[in-house]
Amino acid sequence: MAQWVRFTTEGETRFGTLAHGIITEYSGDMFAAHALSGREFALAAVQMLRPCEPSKLIGLWNNFHERAVLENLHKPEHPLYFLKSANSFAADGDLIPRPAGYDGMVVFEGELGIVIGKRCKGITLEQAPEHIFGYTCVNDVTARELLKLDPAFVHWTRAKSFDQFGVFGPCIATGLNPAELRVRVELNGVEKQNYPVEDMFFSPYEIVSRISHDVTLEAGDVIACGTSVGVCGMNDGDTVVVSIAGIGELTNRFG
Amino acid sequence: MAQWVRFTTEGETRFGTLAHGIITEYSGDMFAAHALSGREFALAAVQMLRPCEPSKLIGLWNNFHERAVLENLHKPEHPLYFLKSANSFAADGDLIPRPAGYDGMVVFEGELGIVIGKRCKGITLEQAPEHIFGYTCVNDVTARELLKLDPAFVHWTRAKSFDQFGVFGPCIATGLNPAELRVRVELNGVEKQNYPVEDMFFSPYEIVSRISHDVTLEAGDVIACGTSVGVCGMNDGDTVVVSIAGIGELTNRFG
Repeated sequence: MAQWVRFTTEGETRFGTLAHGIITEYSGDMFAAHALSGREFALAAVQMLRPCEPSKLIGLWNNFHERAVLENLHKPEHPLYFLKSANSFAADGDLIPRPAGYDGMVVFEGELGIVIGKRCKGITLEQAPEHIFGYTCVNDVTARELLKLDPAFVHWTRAKSFDQFGVFGPCIATGLNPAELRVRVELNGVEKQNYPVEDMFFSPYEIVSRISHDVTLEAGDVIACGTSVGVCGMNDGDTVVVSIAGIGELTNRFG
Repeated sequence: MAQWVRFTTEGETRFGTLAHGIITEYSGDMFAAHALSGREFALAAVQMLRPCEPSKLIGLWNNFHERAVLENLHKPEHPLYFLKSANSFAADGDLIPRPAGYDGMVVFEGELGIVIGKRCKGITLEQAPEHIFGYTCVNDVTARELLKLDPAFVHWTRAKSFDQFGVFGPCIATGLNPAELRVRVELNGVEKQNYPVEDMFFSPYEIVSRISHDVTLEAGDVIACGTSVGVCGMNDGDTVVVSIAGIGELTNRFG
C-alpha cells in the first residue's frame, strides 16, 4: 500500500509517496518506470496538486442500489456515464466557485475514483485489476438546476463541467480492495453520506472492463463510480470533505 | 489568411503553415510566440497530424434552423453541448473504426469547428473574435442507436466518444469570416450535406462568448458548431469527406 501524490516546490512539479507527513520523491513516470530520487520533502513545505492529469474524467450515473430504489430507477444494461471537462479538474484545498450568474442549487457528490494505470481497450473482468493503478476520492460537483432547463436535452456537460467542479485527491492509494471501502462526506462537520462500495450495480472492476470496450482508457484517466444517497446542496462558505479510509480526506470550500 | 498544420517527420512533431504543397515550419507555440524556423517540408514527405491537441472538444446539438424545423425543435435559450473524449480525436486520413460488437447505424455529421486561440472566461460577444485562432472541419461521428438504449439516460458520451469518432482537420485556417462559410459533406463522392453557417441559431462568436461564461476555454480547444440536415449512416468501407472552402477537405474511411 502506498499513497502517491503530486506537488510543486522550487518551481518544479514532482511526485512521490506520502507517509507520516513526509513525501519520498520519485523520478520518472508515476504510471510506468520510476525510481527513488533520493530526496524527501515535508508535506507542510510543498504545494499539493491533484494527483494526476487525466486525459478524461468519466462519471457514472445510477450505479447504486440504495439510490436507485429511492429514485425509482433500475439497474442499467451498461454503465451510464458522462464526461467532466479538463477545466473542471481541481485538487484538495481548491475553492469550488459558485458559477457566475447562477443562484440555484449546487450539490456535492462524494464518490470513489478509479485511476487507470495502463492503457487498455476491450479488456475482460479478470484483466481489470492489473490495469488499475489505485483509487482516489472524487467530489463530482453539479449545478443541479441546469440539468433539465431545456426539456429536449438533459445538459449533463454544462451542469457538471464548471471550473473546479471535478475535484479529486488528495492522493492515489494503491493496494486497496475496493469492495471493502466506504465513501463518507461531511458538510461543515456533519455527516451527509456514508455508503459502501459493495452497493454498486457495476463494481470497479466491471466498470473498467465494460467502459474499456467503448473507449481506450489511458494511464491516469479517472472514472468516478457514481454516488449514492445523501447528496445535498451547499451554501456559500460551506466546507465539504469526501473521505475514504486508506485514501484520506478531500477538503474544499464552496462559494 | 494562413492554413496551420501539425505533422511529424524525422521522429519529431512540428508545425507550420501550408501553401501549394509546401509546409513552412515555425518554432515556438502555434497559439502564442512563434517564429520561422528556416525549414520547409514537402507535404507529401511528412505524416500529417490533427492540427492541435485540445484540452476539450465540445460539440453543439440543435444549432440550425433548417434541421430544427425538420425535427420539430425550437431555438434553445443557451447553447446545448456535450463533450467528446480525447480517445476520439482523429486526423485527416485516419480510419474511423466501427465499434466492436455494434452493428447499428453510425452517422457522419459535418460541422464547422472553432479553434480557440487564447484562454478566456466570461468574455463578451465583441471580445470573441480576438479569442478565436481559426476554423477547422469536424466530423462528429455518432453511433446513433446507442443514444437512447436506456430510457432514463440519453447516452451522448458513449454514442460520440468511441475511438476516432472525433475527427478534425486537415488544418486550422485563419482570417476567414465564418458567416460566409458553407459546410459540405460527400459520402463516396455523392453530396449529402451542403449548408450555410449563417443558418446557425448561435453564431460562432455567440457560441464562444456564451460557453466561455460556463467554462474556461483554453488555446487549442475545439468547439464543433453542430450539424444541419443531410446526416446519414455509413456502410463499412465508405469514404466521407467534410469540406469547407478556405479550410480544405477532411477525408476518412469508415469500417
